[in-house]
Amino acid sequence: MARNLKSEKRAVKKAVVLLSGGVDSSTTLAVALSEGYDVHALTFDYGQRHKIELQFSSRIAELFNVKKHTVLSFNLRAIGGSAITSDIAVPKGVPQDTAESIPVTYVPARNTIFLSFALALAEAAGAEDIFIGANAVDYSGYPDCRPEYLRAFEAMANLATKAGVEHTSEFKIHAPLLYFSKAEIIKLGVSLGVDFALTLSCYDPGPTGTPCGECQSCLIRERGFKEAAIADPRLI
Amino acid sequence: MARNLKSEKRAVKKAVVLLSGGVDSSTTLAVALSEGYDVHALTFDYGQRHKIELQFSSRIAELFNVKKHTVLSFNLRAIGGSAITSDIAVPKGVPQDTAESIPVTYVPARNTIFLSFALALAEAAGAEDIFIGANAVDYSGYPDCRPEYLRAFEAMANLATKAGVEHTSEFKIHAPLLYFSKAEIIKLGVSLGVDFALTLSCYDPGPTGTPCGECQSCLIRERGFKEAAIADPRLI
Repeated sequence: MARNLKSEKRAVKKAVVLLSGGVDSSTTLAVALSEGYDVHALTFDYGQRHKIELQFSSRIAELFNVKKHTVLSFNLRAIGGSAITSDIAVPKGVPQDTAESIPVTYVPARNTIFLSFALALAEAAGAEDIFIGANAVDYSGYPDCRPEYLRAFEAMANLATKAGVEHTSEFKIHAPLLYFSKAEIIKLGVSLGVDFALTLSCYDPGPTGTPCGECQSCLIRERGFKEAAIADPRLI
Repeated sequence: MARNLKSEKRAVKKAVVLLSGGVDSSTTLAVALSEGYDVHALTFDYGQRHKIELQFSSRIAELFNVKKHTVLSFNLRAIGGSAITSDIAVPKGVPQDTAESIPVTYVPARNTIFLSFALALAEAAGAEDIFIGANAVDYSGYPDCRPEYLRAFEAMANLATKAGVEHTSEFKIHAPLLYFSKAEIIKLGVSLGVDFALTLSCYDPGPTGTPCGECQSCLIRERGFKEAAIADPRLI
């Protein structure tokens, strides 16, 4: 009885988790939950051509019964500059292993916009931990997935906010998958209960979310499951 | 003739200017134009209670005939935490000179969100200069108006972006009014052709933009005009 009371009184740490409904963000959500955080998931309807990912993010949020799931809308098509938010074609059949060149699927400052909203939500909700599924190994050469970028955002965040300046919070950007290969992420996700059948990786899916199987993101996913020696449940 | 040709060929530097339609952002716009920038003004419809500022920003953009003016919409009421985006009352009759405490009109991470969109637009449009009317003198104690914050954002921006990483651009955050008093800003604005009759400062205006005259922002404006020995054209 006393133990229950103590347990009830213990403050649960809150976290904001960026959730797109893909492999990485879904696994990141599972990691945050496994660390005992009370999770507020945050998803963006930003004019992405794969808008159906919003449905996948909702299913993942439901699977894990997260405390809150907020979807914020804004139109990055008004800004453009990416195959994801314009009529530029998504390249097919070209896997990309390194950051030698940044692909046309890069969306200008996207993670900075996403993390800024996460920071606002964290401050308003009294959370100091923000989780993002950024990955610097099997990634797509995006500058805003690199560790030096994430550190710079964190430093900025603590100068930007009332909570940071008054030292009531110290905001931390957690990227638990940063140095994982895609295969390692998939194995971790499976071990934490992620149902990858509910995830979408494709940049150019059909109307019901059928992956194209040829874009860079599909190819990275395919290779990840192969290396993990796990069958992709989306393809079964 | 040759001179005209040369002038036509010279690349005009592009800038993104954050424009709310208040005294500071309107003067900042005028500064950017006076420095020869081709300006893309950016305004946000974010759930602010003084939404009528959108009309003021449009009038200022028209006054200066800026090349482009984009209004982006998103709903910070879904995040809350501020008198500006919730039903918390805007305090009246309390001028605030220093950053001793941060007022309830602070909006969590607002300038970070605004600057993130400006960064996205700058990268997509091939601009490297971003102007913000942040002020660290006659300001409201907001953490995201301080020079150390702006420097941290700039450092982050150059790590966040394709243009920054590939060194095709070096993003700069310009806050030309950072160390100006409100009176100095008003005098500068007048000298650069800002019609302050077209600006709105009030946090809690009437339906047609009539200032309440009692909120912190109204009081700072009133004192600024008085110290500048200029009649506020909104009150004539």
